[in-house]
Amino acid sequence: LFPEMIISMWKNLLQTTKERILQQRRMSLYSEAHGYEEDLIKKKLQQFAGGSINLSKEDNGIGILTLNNPKLMNAFTGTMMLELQEKVTELENWKDGKGLIIYGAGNTFCSGSDLNVVKAICNSQAISINFACKTLLCRLPLISVALVQGKAIGGGAELTTACDFRLMTPGSEIRFVQKFMGLVPGWGAGARLVQIVGSGAALQLLSGATRVDPERALHLGLSEGTLSSSDEAGALEEARAWLSQYTEGPASVIRAAKEVVAVGRELPLEAALRTEKDIFGTLWGGPANSQALARRPKYK
Amino acid sequence: LFPEMIISMWKNLLQTTKERILQQRRMSLYSEAHGYEEDLIKKKLQQFAGGSINLSKEDNGIGILTLNNPKLMNAFTGTMMLELQEKVTELENWKDGKGLIIYGAGNTFCSGSDLNVVKAICNSQAISINFACKTLLCRLPLISVALVQGKAIGGGAELTTACDFRLMTPGSEIRFVQKFMGLVPGWGAGARLVQIVGSGAALQLLSGATRVDPERALHLGLSEGTLSSSDEAGALEEARAWLSQYTEGPASVIRAAKEVVAVGRELPLEAALRTEKDIFGTLWGGPANSQALARRPKYK
Amino acid sequence: LFPEMIISMWKNLLQTTKERILQQRRMSLYSEAHGYEEDLIKKKLQQFAGGSINLSKEDNGIGILTLNNPKLMNAFTGTMMLELQEKVTELENWKDGKGLIIYGAGNTFCSGSDLNVVKAICNSQAISINFACKTLLCRLPLISVALVQGKAIGGGAELTTACDFRLMTPGSEIRFVQKFMGLVPGWGAGARLVQIVGSGAALQLLSGATRVDPERALHLGLSEGTLSSSDEAGALEEARAWLSQYTEGPASVIRAAKEVVAVGRELPLEAALRTEKDIFGTLWGGPANSQALARRPKYK
Repeated sequence: LFPEMIISMWKNLLQTTKERILQQRRMSLYSEAHGYEEDLIKKKLQQFAGGSINLSKEDNGIGILTLNNPKLMNAFTGTMMLELQEKVTELENWKDGKGLIIYGAGNTFCSGSDLNVVKAICNSQAISINFACKTLLCRLPLISVALVQGKAIGGGAELTTACDFRLMTPGSEIRFVQKFMGLVPGWGAGARLVQIVGSGAALQLLSGATRVDPERALHLGLSEGTLSSSDEAGALEEARAWLSQYTEGPASVIRAAKEVVAVGRELPLEAALRTEKDIFGTLWGGPANSQALARRPKYK
Repeated sequence: LFPEMIISMWKNLLQTTKERILQQRRMSLYSEAHGYEEDLIKKKLQQFAGGSINLSKEDNGIGILTLNNPKLMNAFTGTMMLELQEKVTELENWKDGKGLIIYGAGNTFCSGSDLNVVKAICNSQAISINFACKTLLCRLPLISVALVQGKAIGGGAELTTACDFRLMTPGSEIRFVQKFMGLVPGWGAGARLVQIVGSGAALQLLSGATRVDPERALHLGLSEGTLSSSDEAGALEEARAWLSQYTEGPASVIRAAKEVVAVGRELPLEAALRTEKDIFGTLWGGPANSQALARRPKYK
Repeated sequence: LFPEMIISMWKNLLQTTKERILQQRRMSLYSEAHGYEEDLIKKKLQQFAGGSINLSKEDNGIGILTLNNPKLMNAFTGTMMLELQEKVTELENWKDGKGLIIYGAGNTFCSGSDLNVVKAICNSQAISINFACKTLLCRLPLISVALVQGKAIGGGAELTTACDFRLMTPGSEIRFVQKFMGLVPGWGAGARLVQIVGSGAALQLLSGATRVDPERALHLGLSEGTLSSSDEAGALEEARAWLSQYTEGPASVIRAAKEVVAVGRELPLEAALRTEKDIFGTLWGGPANSQALARRPKYK
């Protein structure tokens, strides 16, 4: 009886995987700090004001998220952390959304967290906020690109790994400098980096705090392409064109493709296969599928 | 007490992994559709007749599976789905089997499912049949190769990911066109593609419906080699020679090597390590091992 | 209530992951053979004496482990198996340790187990000993390098996969010859090889018993670099210089970087992310972090 109970629970776990994933998406940023504590953290973060996170949602279904604090290389202040969470929630609710480009103002990506904030809120809740925010970002049903100009260092490098793809401009770099701060990644970049470049390269990048230029990033699989423009307008235009290859089509289909892949990288194979079947089931017989079946597809 | 119970259950889960895997192999194609429903599905599929799946089992332990419906680019009719299931069961019971080559008649691989079948059986059982069949194929203790001539598109592209290896002839292509049908893969190709080419490339191939030629496939790791022949006989001969490098030796050993790798890609590391030890245990002291120990191996 | 109970147990499992990992590190080599049996196995292994495992712990935090049985190509005798376990325990307790280089005496790496030992202790406990030892080695909080001169074959090839990195000297080779002994890897190399080179290449190396030279190893990702020296002293010096790139800095930080990556390759993503957050928490606000925050890091 005991083994059977276990197998039944295991099956149950697998079947509820999708529900859990959906629930985790909806989970509060402050999942481990409830009520009173949540307010305290918010108030503390609000004391460190400066910079902003801007979001524009374009008609083509691509969102553009700007990290805007150029005098500190777009380091995250307390209010920027709070704004990032708001924007991620807004993106979650954007049903026509298919893609997302994240870039930094002033021709540089991001240098992580403002050290003043870091010193002031040395506690586990602050870690949790950043952690949850990166996790939510990574699970958005949007195909996401980090457009790296200038430097993506420390927490900024970590932020790039929460995106599906990275594109780099000439002369830019990604560098995990956490070691120099007596730290390792804590926002999920360790585990994500293992998935992106393999465990050997991940260990080298983290323990060596190696500077990764566009060529090396391409070779490692950390970047999907080196853009030709170095200026913001040109780079954004190139990134938008690159991303459009993958966002063309009905939102329901593009979002499902992202979900299938996200599930494939997050779950052990068997659980992933079952969840994939469920995601497929949400499209089969639906509007996009019915319209496609009504005409004979032209690609053959 | 509670944590100890959990740890003990976890251990139990790991220990029963191999049993579960073996059991899943034996599980009915119609696992989610029992008795009466199973008969209904079979009858429905039989209404869509045409084409065939042919299997020849060669003395060298290599099976050759032909998808045979050339006037529809080897699209799966209802009866072909049923025949595929029969052949997979036959291969499971072929104790001398070590390898498998799947190819399509008429110099092209496969275009997925016949749209007439798809339209008629728009229900979850039909999804389950295809899903289960791909899973069973992938877990066969045979080293499997998809020999891609012409086109492997949609469900055909998906079928190639259920094999351990892909070999391509000049001018052939693999293309996940599901997006154009308002769909994503539902037969397991999403999760398997993530394992084969990584999550970034998988997302590009699915959301971009990108045409992958032999050169690009080699670069991505989606193909292991480009053959020189374009004709069926020549390509089959080359594929057979390529596969023979890996199937030489006792069937018990070759099959165990496949199992060790299948377990390594399906399970989290700890569970995989334990299962690997179990598979090793089935060979240690067995006939092939004893004969090898009796003579000093010549490779040193 | 039932699903909630399952979710709560799942959470509990994730939360206890780190404890489990730590506990597994401490677990006896003879985890599956207790008390009386443990003594029996030890006595049996002691009957097959010869060779030695030497360890020197350098001031730079790098340990050098020598497999020393050159007349048998450093094959493991019974006493060497016991010594390896002692040295791994010693390394676990070396709090200043950051890196580890494993190499073989006499300009060759290792040819696996001495066949006399193998024939005598054909039982599951002997398998478990080797298995546990490799697992412990792999989980040491040290960045480990297998320095491959000459040949790493069979169990010797397997031993290299228990290290984070492999460096090869000109003319050396790694070869999984288990197939010729009627075996598959049983010390974990199957699952680890899948993680290092992917499941396709792993299946080729195991089922083909392919000889992998330094160039092929680099291409597959099985090796991180080909050294220029072929002699022991020169190769060791090069390996030490290579490893030093990654071990520079406080031991607490380097060890945590190794742990984050080990967790990323061992656990499903969600569990890895949570454990990473815990590891981060052990550094945040600690001595290395406080000192770094006190000065503004110079890398920006």
